[in-house]
Amino acid sequence: MKIAIDAMGGDNAPKAQVEGAMEAIQHNDDLHITLVGDEQAIRAYLSNEERITIIHTDEVITGDEEPIRAVRRKKTSSLVLAAKEVKDKKADACISAGNTGALVVAGLFVVGRMKGIDRPALSPTLPTTDGRGFLLLDAGANVDADVHNLVQYAVMGSVYSEKVRMIDHPRVGLLNVGTEDTKGNNLMKKTFNQLKRAPINFIGNIEGRDLMDGVADVVVTDGFSGNIALKTIEGTALHVATLFKQALTSSLKAKLAASVIKNDLNKLKKELDYSEYGGSALFGLAAPVIKSHGSSNSRAIYLTIKQACQMIEQDMIGKIKKTVSTLEAVEED
Amino acid sequence: MKIAIDAMGGDNAPKAQVEGAMEAIQHNDDLHITLVGDEQAIRAYLSNEERITIIHTDEVITGDEEPIRAVRRKKTSSLVLAAKEVKDKKADACISAGNTGALVVAGLFVVGRMKGIDRPALSPTLPTTDGRGFLLLDAGANVDADVHNLVQYAVMGSVYSEKVRMIDHPRVGLLNVGTEDTKGNNLMKKTFNQLKRAPINFIGNIEGRDLMDGVADVVVTDGFSGNIALKTIEGTALHVATLFKQALTSSLKAKLAASVIKNDLNKLKKELDYSEYGGSALFGLAAPVIKSHGSSNSRAIYLTIKQACQMIEQDMIGKIKKTVSTLEAVEED
Repeated sequence: MKIAIDAMGGDNAPKAQVEGAMEAIQHNDDLHITLVGDEQAIRAYLSNEERITIIHTDEVITGDEEPIRAVRRKKTSSLVLAAKEVKDKKADACISAGNTGALVVAGLFVVGRMKGIDRPALSPTLPTTDGRGFLLLDAGANVDADVHNLVQYAVMGSVYSEKVRMIDHPRVGLLNVGTEDTKGNNLMKKTFNQLKRAPINFIGNIEGRDLMDGVADVVVTDGFSGNIALKTIEGTALHVATLFKQALTSSLKAKLAASVIKNDLNKLKKELDYSEYGGSALFGLAAPVIKSHGSSNSRAIYLTIKQACQMIEQDMIGKIKKTVSTLEAVEED
Repeated sequence: MKIAIDAMGGDNAPKAQVEGAMEAIQHNDDLHITLVGDEQAIRAYLSNEERITIIHTDEVITGDEEPIRAVRRKKTSSLVLAAKEVKDKKADACISAGNTGALVVAGLFVVGRMKGIDRPALSPTLPTTDGRGFLLLDAGANVDADVHNLVQYAVMGSVYSEKVRMIDHPRVGLLNVGTEDTKGNNLMKKTFNQLKRAPINFIGNIEGRDLMDGVADVVVTDGFSGNIALKTIEGTALHVATLFKQALTSSLKAKLAASVIKNDLNKLKKELDYSEYGGSALFGLAAPVIKSHGSSNSRAIYLTIKQACQMIEQDMIGKIKKTVSTLEAVEED
């Protein structure tokens, strides 16, 4: 299999991308990687070219560019060229740690949608206390979702969790303002009723405060609320961790105390680092397109490549297509 | 001034309510409090009856009751009778730590709406790194908000922050999926344009990850997203704090280290405890109605009473009314 990587996206590009790619190649004999970006910058970190190809380009989409305009104008940017590899069937999947909006746009207009899916969903996996993690979708690909979109998210998330994350009968919950069946705004009330009939293990409404307790394997919501939830989790975790860090460095004796429990604190840092679960896949496209976190290091890139490999090996796209076609039959009943 | 308190709502009732009321009386010579609930249970904690009246009732609305039905059927419940004191002009404000939905319903149908306001907003103040805190509204009183509602929330939150929290030119932000002016779903794009013309210090769109950094004094959003944000903050803070607690108790040496920095950790606990900022006021009603957190202790109840006193002293309701009437003139332009 072949994976195209935007080598220039994210805070640690291209070092993280090149090192992550070399590591992934060592772990998978069947893998070829195409790194798209500044050849000279890439070669500075490339100590082993085995099964790695470089496509050179000078053009880069930066993090603050308006996505639609950027993708339209920068046709030879590393992000767009990586997506084009997939479109031209030269790669089976593509990865970027760059501009999320631009990746969504390139996914939609370069890679293309999966037949039967109206809107793709951005799907990060976030940490839970029990270490299983939960899939949140949509985290912001589509901010004006309707019932039909949400049901498709639920099915795509369920198939992914079962086939790639290897969770039996993944529990699918609807993010809502209360756990009772009748809770929510108009959109969520209608979606609740449709999800009860969908071919998934729907466990009902769930609340934001229970997300990290692992109350569900798949958490379905519209892209607006999902984006708010995702960023609120990130901000709050950082805030609380910063307060603890301050407490642990506030005096010499605190610093001494912190050094005693250094290993425990490092373990904790790892538990909070959701790049351990891979990147945010864009479900609903014709091929796997994965957003790796902007701050990804080489390990995060390696894990995202591994995730892409699993999605290809498990024929995620084929399985989602199949289940979505069943779904339409159910809805027409 | 006189405040009516539902003495039976919340996890620590009526102890927290009675003790909080006695403390508030000691700090405010002008304050009378009416405690509504089981007289015998209340008297068990009432060591000083000075300026405290009891209205006895056996009926209680529990936390899991359906709000509309509960308020309609339990007309002599402590929560409904406390609201009725306000309706009958026997109290200037009321407080409950009980069923949030039931308090919203009692606020709407017993206390009544403020003239000119379509929907009330539930408005907790949440902690920030700099200790100022931010006001979030709506946190879930009205899950299907329109542009008009959101503009009213912004104005009410701004007046409250200026007159009660004593913040000059409070910075009002719109919770959104990005900071750029054009971001968001249809509702937020339209609201953004209206907020630019409102008589407030509107600073534009803000993101969930910046909330606790104190990026705004007032954070405006619809009740659905606001409820998701509030509960996600609560859940994530608890999750991260639990992980740290586990790290600090994982071994004997960790426990010893933790004991060394006990004071720092206690300070941190206080920084995370948002009951220090008072309860969640329901803005947009004919009189102050405040929800105190379900887990409120006597200090949290005392702080909520203090908050109610400030709202009365500052004539919050009058000032909101006045600004809202200006707003309508602006909108008609």
